[in-house]
Amino acid sequence: MIAPDFIERKKRGWEHSVAEIREFIEGYVNGTIPDYQVAAWLMAVNFQGMTDRETIALVEVMLHSGEIIDLSSIKTFKVDKHSTGGVGDKVSLILAPLANAVGCVVPMLSGRSLGHTGGTLDKLESIPGFRVMLPQQEFMHLVKKYGLAMGGATQEMVPADRKMYALRDVTATVRSIPLICGSILSKKIAEGINGLVLDVKTGNGAVLPEYAQCSLLAKKLINVGQHFGLKVKALLTDMNQPLGRAVGNWLEVWESIEVLKGGGPADLVELTLHLTAWMVVLSGITKSLDQAKAKLKKAITSGLAWEKFIMMVANQGGNVKSVENPQTYPRAGHIAPVLAEQSGYVKGIDTYAIGMIALELGTGRRSLEDRIRPEVGLRLLKKIGDLVELNEPLLEVHAPDKTAWQIAERRVRQAFSFSEDKVIPPPLIYETF
Amino acid sequence: MIAPDFIERKKRGWEHSVAEIREFIEGYVNGTIPDYQVAAWLMAVNFQGMTDRETIALVEVMLHSGEIIDLSSIKTFKVDKHSTGGVGDKVSLILAPLANAVGCVVPMLSGRSLGHTGGTLDKLESIPGFRVMLPQQEFMHLVKKYGLAMGGATQEMVPADRKMYALRDVTATVRSIPLICGSILSKKIAEGINGLVLDVKTGNGAVLPEYAQCSLLAKKLINVGQHFGLKVKALLTDMNQPLGRAVGNWLEVWESIEVLKGGGPADLVELTLHLTAWMVVLSGITKSLDQAKAKLKKAITSGLAWEKFIMMVANQGGNVKSVENPQTYPRAGHIAPVLAEQSGYVKGIDTYAIGMIALELGTGRRSLEDRIRPEVGLRLLKKIGDLVELNEPLLEVHAPDKTAWQIAERRVRQAFSFSEDKVIPPPLIYETF
Repeated sequence: MIAPDFIERKKRGWEHSVAEIREFIEGYVNGTIPDYQVAAWLMAVNFQGMTDRETIALVEVMLHSGEIIDLSSIKTFKVDKHSTGGVGDKVSLILAPLANAVGCVVPMLSGRSLGHTGGTLDKLESIPGFRVMLPQQEFMHLVKKYGLAMGGATQEMVPADRKMYALRDVTATVRSIPLICGSILSKKIAEGINGLVLDVKTGNGAVLPEYAQCSLLAKKLINVGQHFGLKVKALLTDMNQPLGRAVGNWLEVWESIEVLKGGGPADLVELTLHLTAWMVVLSGITKSLDQAKAKLKKAITSGLAWEKFIMMVANQGGNVKSVENPQTYPRAGHIAPVLAEQSGYVKGIDTYAIGMIALELGTGRRSLEDRIRPEVGLRLLKKIGDLVELNEPLLEVHAPDKTAWQIAERRVRQAFSFSEDKVIPPPLIYETF
Repeated sequence: MIAPDFIERKKRGWEHSVAEIREFIEGYVNGTIPDYQVAAWLMAVNFQGMTDRETIALVEVMLHSGEIIDLSSIKTFKVDKHSTGGVGDKVSLILAPLANAVGCVVPMLSGRSLGHTGGTLDKLESIPGFRVMLPQQEFMHLVKKYGLAMGGATQEMVPADRKMYALRDVTATVRSIPLICGSILSKKIAEGINGLVLDVKTGNGAVLPEYAQCSLLAKKLINVGQHFGLKVKALLTDMNQPLGRAVGNWLEVWESIEVLKGGGPADLVELTLHLTAWMVVLSGITKSLDQAKAKLKKAITSGLAWEKFIMMVANQGGNVKSVENPQTYPRAGHIAPVLAEQSGYVKGIDTYAIGMIALELGTGRRSLEDRIRPEVGLRLLKKIGDLVELNEPLLEVHAPDKTAWQIAERRVRQAFSFSEDKVIPPPLIYETF
């Protein structure tokens, strides 16, 4: 392997051979190919892309860079969902126990908050005592016994992705379709699943904002996922405003609890039912999406979905009392609404900015040393299309202190735009692949 | 400086500010910005380019990353020539003493062989005793006293370029117009010159083969060079076959001696006279190129150019006897011609391959540990347009031993293509900017 020649070929837009992709990535993982050569290659991939054949080779070598969970002793269909990341996207917290309530087996490994987007693991960890870093044996045991576990990948799983993701993060090479595809699928296949529902977010709060790019990503995820024997469904869904109302770890858990108990914001309920229904259909539990949705609604009204959530919290060491009484949870230091300085219809929300405001309040990490504040965040009181009167509350900021609140207030105002005319909110689901 | 944001901006094709270029490159030189971020940025620059404003900022910060030679006490015009690199390009060895013979002051800092291209320093060092790594004081002294010195940049000059060039070499980011421009001009401006003649090589043996790219490079070199107060002339010249006949360090010195004594191959003589004449015109010694050429021819026939060469060799510790009697120099272990396996007109020569064959014989370095063999190389006996009979000598291989000769023989044959019809050789000079 002459690494500069390999990089040069990608720079010229040529297709790599399967063997040379394996050699390059293996060399990176074992340390014989240095960071700077991988960084140059990643940037060339950002410009030139990768064919499906190349992406399959990438997934293959990433997958086999570490341990793979062997769930083959569970004979039933195992299904998971993955979102490409957004703001206020707490779907997984509701979907996993809900799918489980109607018979799906869900071995879900999730990620942490990254940049402006939230992470399921950080949300789960806001539940006192909840353990996400389960040893592989315990994770497998929970899936076998209960058909449900939510955790994080262990250090031994897909080390190629961990190493490459950290490098992409600091070299502006995150937003690349084949690299996103490689990262998602290598981790998901390592879980030992049979089916995967992909929620590809598009819009100003998505990791990959442009619709056309998201559409290409969805198709590639399907092609490459199918190559590995996965049943894959991909949906293009809206991220031009936060999903639901809550943004922030515990606030999102609380909102998820509301949905599991039959309440919650309509958009969050609708999207969660839709994505979960696809898991039910992929699992062969119902034939149609409508049948699946009916079953899921019943699981909510009967209280079964909520029971499964409680079961999972208990299984993984979480304090059941805190989720049963979310109002008793510690509150942020300074909670107050931001008032509208003008009246009008909400025309647009800079969702990326909302994510960044939340991040700076403490919902995520800006560096490895940062501590997450589970109680801080935002609650949107108005969303796109809503009419706002002058001085009406726009959004509630849950800040650690008044200074942080004031900084957030100014930035929140800039994130909203208004119109005198009525505004039609964006659709929730654009396309299903 | 948030380095990933900086890289992202270049990736998107946005223009950097002067301040952020300075901060990024300074951070790289002082070690606060790691190799892998610079590698990703370099690759983004390869795709997105840089504006003249950005390139000027790059040259500025590279130039000031180290020591600059102060030749301001020499009130006369100081002029140099730089070639973007080719095969058999020994022009500098002839041009520097020749220009000096007609009154030019030439403080020339050159480079070493790189990849398939030769390097003036390695050629000079094939002269026994010749010292190219002159301390700055000695270099300045020679320029002041004799108006001529040929050496290499010291460790203290343009460290940004040394560091960045080494990184570009291993990350497939060498062939970028603004980066080539930054590398050449920062080093040339650090010499303290007033005028610069640029020989931009185009063709299958050039570092940047495509004509259109070379044309853009020539224009950028002029624009950016002029910004720094340099008088700049750029020529696009042919590198679809080696220049002259000799390829290899001592063989090229020998051929240069022939030209300085009034002989040598016609193409080498013509191009050298042309480039040197531009130095004479830039220096204001003559008004027209023809006047300059007449003066230069006289300097050769009178023996003055040769005297200046001898003077320089003596000044820099070289063995004058060896250049006066080049036939006494140690010969390569196995010297024999490669015979043509067919008759016809030489249609094309893979000049890159010729450079690589020479490199493997020992004319250059493949790794830092490689020792250069000054006596090895190639001598072309046929060039494009020449008629070759079956079994007629095509090229003479000066190899260290028979095995190396045999490897070279096979590869030399592949590098030549033939035609039954007459072939018109490519022009020597395409365009003058």
